[in-house]
Amino acid sequence: MKIVLSQLNYTIGDLDGNVNKMAEHINRAKNDGADIIVFSELSICGYIPKDMLNYQSFVKRCYTALDTLKAYANGIAIIAGMPTRSGLTKGKKLYNSAVVMADGEILQEVHKTLLPTYDVFDEYRYFEPNTSFNLVEYKGVKMAITICEDLWNLDAPHLYSTTPMDELMALQPDIMINLSGSPYSYNHVEDRKNRMVANAKQYQLPLVYVNQIGAHTDILFDGGSMFINQTGEIAEELNYFQEDYRCIDWSKDEVYPDNSLDYKDEDIELIHDAIVMGIRDYFGKMGFKKALLGSSGGIDSAVIHALAAEALGPENVMAVLLPSKYSSTGSVVDAETLSKNLNSPYKIISIEDMVKVVEGTLTPHFDGYDVDVTEENIQARSRGLLLMALSNKYGSMVLNTSNKSETAVGYATLYGDMCGGLSAIGDLYKMQVYEMARYINRDREIIPEEIINKAPSAELRHDQKDSDSLPPYPVLDKILMLYIEEQKGWTEIVAMGYDEALVRKVIKLVDRNEYKRFQAAPILRISNLAFGVGRQMPLVGRFYN
Amino acid sequence: MKIVLSQLNYTIGDLDGNVNKMAEHINRAKNDGADIIVFSELSICGYIPKDMLNYQSFVKRCYTALDTLKAYANGIAIIAGMPTRSGLTKGKKLYNSAVVMADGEILQEVHKTLLPTYDVFDEYRYFEPNTSFNLVEYKGVKMAITICEDLWNLDAPHLYSTTPMDELMALQPDIMINLSGSPYSYNHVEDRKNRMVANAKQYQLPLVYVNQIGAHTDILFDGGSMFINQTGEIAEELNYFQEDYRCIDWSKDEVYPDNSLDYKDEDIELIHDAIVMGIRDYFGKMGFKKALLGSSGGIDSAVIHALAAEALGPENVMAVLLPSKYSSTGSVVDAETLSKNLNSPYKIISIEDMVKVVEGTLTPHFDGYDVDVTEENIQARSRGLLLMALSNKYGSMVLNTSNKSETAVGYATLYGDMCGGLSAIGDLYKMQVYEMARYINRDREIIPEEIINKAPSAELRHDQKDSDSLPPYPVLDKILMLYIEEQKGWTEIVAMGYDEALVRKVIKLVDRNEYKRFQAAPILRISNLAFGVGRQMPLVGRFYN
Repeated sequence: MKIVLSQLNYTIGDLDGNVNKMAEHINRAKNDGADIIVFSELSICGYIPKDMLNYQSFVKRCYTALDTLKAYANGIAIIAGMPTRSGLTKGKKLYNSAVVMADGEILQEVHKTLLPTYDVFDEYRYFEPNTSFNLVEYKGVKMAITICEDLWNLDAPHLYSTTPMDELMALQPDIMINLSGSPYSYNHVEDRKNRMVANAKQYQLPLVYVNQIGAHTDILFDGGSMFINQTGEIAEELNYFQEDYRCIDWSKDEVYPDNSLDYKDEDIELIHDAIVMGIRDYFGKMGFKKALLGSSGGIDSAVIHALAAEALGPENVMAVLLPSKYSSTGSVVDAETLSKNLNSPYKIISIEDMVKVVEGTLTPHFDGYDVDVTEENIQARSRGLLLMALSNKYGSMVLNTSNKSETAVGYATLYGDMCGGLSAIGDLYKMQVYEMARYINRDREIIPEEIINKAPSAELRHDQKDSDSLPPYPVLDKILMLYIEEQKGWTEIVAMGYDEALVRKVIKLVDRNEYKRFQAAPILRISNLAFGVGRQMPLVGRFYN
Repeated sequence: MKIVLSQLNYTIGDLDGNVNKMAEHINRAKNDGADIIVFSELSICGYIPKDMLNYQSFVKRCYTALDTLKAYANGIAIIAGMPTRSGLTKGKKLYNSAVVMADGEILQEVHKTLLPTYDVFDEYRYFEPNTSFNLVEYKGVKMAITICEDLWNLDAPHLYSTTPMDELMALQPDIMINLSGSPYSYNHVEDRKNRMVANAKQYQLPLVYVNQIGAHTDILFDGGSMFINQTGEIAEELNYFQEDYRCIDWSKDEVYPDNSLDYKDEDIELIHDAIVMGIRDYFGKMGFKKALLGSSGGIDSAVIHALAAEALGPENVMAVLLPSKYSSTGSVVDAETLSKNLNSPYKIISIEDMVKVVEGTLTPHFDGYDVDVTEENIQARSRGLLLMALSNKYGSMVLNTSNKSETAVGYATLYGDMCGGLSAIGDLYKMQVYEMARYINRDREIIPEEIINKAPSAELRHDQKDSDSLPPYPVLDKILMLYIEEQKGWTEIVAMGYDEALVRKVIKLVDRNEYKRFQAAPILRISNLAFGVGRQMPLVGRFYN
């Protein structure tokens, strides 16, 4: 039996576009003589349309798209993901379903049982969980079809009391098929592969696992669809961060040779590819071609500039150097060199006149007050204003240049350097930004070594260094990771040997800056716990963690 | 049997503070000879601590607070809300519980069955639903204790397959007790009362219903706790938007006279009180005393100024008039009059010099481009920059001045007039802002009539009117309400008699401005569907609703 794994990049809500893409792969599968083609979770509408699902008109449109797709189901069975109406008198109105089509008709619908509602997932907001279990039979093959999370309750700790494959095994399936919407994080790729292999071994069944690729704003899907033997070898592994198509010729009980890729978690290459895809997709799906960023001569803007140049083409990324009297000559020269190395256009616009007039305007109102952080914020916001004006005029989007370390402790100015439509490295700690810079320079010096080697500075006052306000990044990043990713309280972190005063200071900074992050640009998620929808903290509250 | 309803204002995460407040009411209840005191849902930690619940250290602190509270349970039973550890090997780690304490010990724990996961609610993100049903007996009285949503599955459409009171009725309870965290919206107060009355009638049992008050950033709790007869009359109704305490002397089968308040939904008075509480609590719980706002002489900033003056004291609200060459004399005079009427301090700071320098700085870079919205945004962002600088220097918080109509269609400048720490009227459509202005003027002319009567204008170019870009507000607001609150698609709205081109234009504006709202200040929620956590839309996507 020939089964096609179709790994596509969908656009949320673009039902016609998605169906057209799917139809291309269906036609190719027919040419290949395939019996079945499998798409990923919610493929028809994109994963996940969020509150568009609350609109009956949207669900209706999904059914219209399904009708279009159904017509392609001749000579081939199609398994596609879609929200379906539950028709329940008690419960939510929708299921998250796999719709199986054959001979121009709907053969069967299979609904998702386990609805992830944690981190970036919110599925119980929309869907009723499935409670009845049936196989789907096609051409004599009995398929146990599940959707994403359904295969993730195998090991302790069990997040759910039901394990769908345990139920389905009673019906003696021949093969497992999973439609997935499993986002990338650098802690997730190996885990996902291990878990899917564990399923094949546990149930002694082959597994066809189809994931999607593409960025839906902050959430990055990496693909990596697989065909796994009943003995647990990965016989086919599709590409990462690219659309892909694979037709497998499967016979029962046959064991295919291992053919897995050798990506490893925390591979900087994968993180790089994830961010490049994230930038490219956000701009593409938003209808933007051109980006603009403030280029300070520091490491963060340098890395973003290089990543954006790769995503959008260097000619489409404009660097704007916005020096003040506190900017070192080195910073300007380094930023210029970077633009030249990348072949990007750049501009130098001094903020001096603007800052002087703002300060002059405010002088009578600041009488009797000391100089404080206000004056630094004025510089950052002057830069923000100029960048936004240029982006308005040129029809480009400003790239935010914050990293995760400074986003965490609030070492950034709201409406100043926090401005921008997308935060490309807001989920990379400072030490990871350095690692990325070295990766970018792997073949030649794109980012000048001076940028990588200089002490980090916001250059908002004379001879300022980040280390004046913050602990050294190697220490800061570790404390942050323990507090944010690993959700340890301060007593637990101190017990690991970190200085109590320092830990409490860092945690306090993180907590009291929720209000800033609330207004931050969307952040491309590359870790298992990114700021944004994956970490929802009260703005008002007392924190003692 | 004497039962106390304790309606308090909690602070999320302030466990000591919350327990101290509760202890005061316990002591008062003891003085009143009460047998039982009932607090609201998650009272010990505040509703809802969101992802603080993912920290084991936080849950541990809740248990420590519970120990403190337990010691007060002598001569009185205490029923308080808290997250408790589920101890399950399959399922989520926590329950949302009512802990019943007596004689210094925990008598029983009752867990919430129905976990709202829609709108602003996200409880299945944290909690495992209860599946076993038991009464709690104290002094011979059998209590059916439930938590908030547990009583909301009475009528069709049933959102859940289980109805907890149906299960508990088999055990023959004497009274129902509900611990609630039911937020205010102007569509909700009557509905809530009707539903609780329906429960009493359905089960022919009296109901002690305890809600909380206070603002947790955007979510406003209004109180209105009740004691309802088994025949459905509201015998006691506690105050709205104020802490309250009521000791009832209840005997089985007795029917108490109706004593309900006569608030009605959409009462502008309730909306007014909600927003005033929202401002006061956000500032108070954030540790801010002083506010600052851009006062344009328009209706929005006037209404916010008046509401903030009531919440914080007029002397703590500074109005900053930021005229440009496009500002009419009337606008400045009207804004001045308003500040004088309110007895608030105000400043006039022209943005002319700043705008001139910014435009001068950008002239060489704008060569060959036409004048467009860029120049308008520069003015709005210059104002934003000056407001933020003043708030930094004075240690005050900027109040955002956007209303729901302009937030919906994106008629606002990101980092310009969208700046601020809190959006007080971001859930009021323009027509509701007018209604609020008239209510504020109910006794005397606080907001000058000129402000109420002039045609709305952003005054960002010569002789500009909102009606140049937008349909008249009475029409716009109706289309927006149908699309946002009622979740109708464009075909449905057109079928109601609205012009198709207009409807599609409005909806397109709403959809394509998700990216702006993503970076907006938190909005005090007063409707059943506010922008913010209650309406989660993809930023990237195609919308055809």
